[in-house]
Amino acid sequence: MKTKLSIIKIGGNVIDDENKLEKFLSDFSSIKNAKILIHGGGKIATEICNKLNITTTMNQGRRITSTENLEVITMVYAGLINKKIVSKLQGNGCNALGLSGADANCIQALKRSTQPVDYGWVGDIQTINNTAINLFLENGIIPVFCAVSHDGNGQLLNTNADTIAAEISISLSELYEVELIYFFEHKGVLTNMADKNSFIPEINNEKYETLIQQKTIKDGMLPKLENGFYALNNKVKRVVIGNQIEGISPINCTSLIL
Amino acid sequence: MKTKLSIIKIGGNVIDDENKLEKFLSDFSSIKNAKILIHGGGKIATEICNKLNITTTMNQGRRITSTENLEVITMVYAGLINKKIVSKLQGNGCNALGLSGADANCIQALKRSTQPVDYGWVGDIQTINNTAINLFLENGIIPVFCAVSHDGNGQLLNTNADTIAAEISISLSELYEVELIYFFEHKGVLTNMADKNSFIPEINNEKYETLIQQKTIKDGMLPKLENGFYALNNKVKRVVIGNQIEGISPINCTSLIL
Repeated sequence: MKTKLSIIKIGGNVIDDENKLEKFLSDFSSIKNAKILIHGGGKIATEICNKLNITTTMNQGRRITSTENLEVITMVYAGLINKKIVSKLQGNGCNALGLSGADANCIQALKRSTQPVDYGWVGDIQTINNTAINLFLENGIIPVFCAVSHDGNGQLLNTNADTIAAEISISLSELYEVELIYFFEHKGVLTNMADKNSFIPEINNEKYETLIQQKTIKDGMLPKLENGFYALNNKVKRVVIGNQIEGISPINCTSLIL
Repeated sequence: MKTKLSIIKIGGNVIDDENKLEKFLSDFSSIKNAKILIHGGGKIATEICNKLNITTTMNQGRRITSTENLEVITMVYAGLINKKIVSKLQGNGCNALGLSGADANCIQALKRSTQPVDYGWVGDIQTINNTAINLFLENGIIPVFCAVSHDGNGQLLNTNADTIAAEISISLSELYEVELIYFFEHKGVLTNMADKNSFIPEINNEKYETLIQQKTIKDGMLPKLENGFYALNNKVKRVVIGNQIEGISPINCTSLIL
């Protein structure tokens, strides 16, 4: 039987709130089985860009990663946020190791084609180095990934943290029984945005399609669900979308099921 | 017999010059034995501080690390510079892993006493985790350290890169035959600053004292020599101060001898 591995992704709602972050990192440290943390960037990168007068170009609501943007992302995600999280985890007795995808060649990506839209320095994941990640895990070292990958030829790339979480979960499912938890601002997929308790406990592939058609799932939720089902369809054992306030292995949440 | 380990420290003269950095990283990648890279910060942190309107307070010519300074240092050293170096090394086929002292608890430090001078978030090294560093080396992973440590209680600290290089060299000398190379702007300790070829080939403890008295060694050179002799007096096999243009294992350089 495979050993359990918890892979948890946190975003801005935790990173940008000092108290929530402390609480989450304390909960994360208490997980007894093998674990990996993946974090997004929060608002800090945008704030630093503003202070440095770096403009962010958007295309159809999606951010273009210019050279200047990539530099700030590398500073803030791989530097400021990643090392802050790692040092706090160390303070909790959790032997964390902060990683970008370039480190130990953990995540190799391909720069996205400039056609039809040039998103700049954005990378789509090609390879997860599960040998390196497993070496860390087997030695009690807890990987903490930021949303930066590399192309293997010396170029760093901006890569979506939800996708990194899904791809690492799939790759590590070769070796572990993986549970993938996406923490975000709600308890799960809400049927009624005005009611924070209206989360749907379980969503299967069929219901997922219906919810998209009904426009219950839209905007930011779409890629999360897409990545979640992609993981579930590729041997990840459990995929959950919820809020960290409900505990590190939440029951009040949305579980994706096949 | 112990295996050879080369520990190389680079500073601003390499980091701030794109061409020199490319050349150095290519040379570093070609080293066949075990190796570790330690890098300082260069001018970028100061530039970012200026752009962000963060003032740097000095005391007797030495920088005070305020909370804002530490944030920029963490961004620039552990983020921008470290990941740039790691991705470029990966591009050269060198399986680099970027590390702050907090990562895998590699470098634990103690915040310096606020008496007689409060230097802010500066840490003096207490423990090097040579078990973790050796785990990486034994698995063909090349550690790349920036000049950031932590106190083990959740606080990152600014720590001198020359000292990090010396302490890691001493700690790893338990397991390896260590050569420590400090690369900087000159070929070695110069007897005449106007003559770039006037480097002293060998300096022993006695000559070191004389050179200090004669003020041939002063300012920025002092801590480098101090760290170098400290390493040499603590089982590091070879300590060299030179310029990377002379090759990755320079002959035209200053060797410290007992």
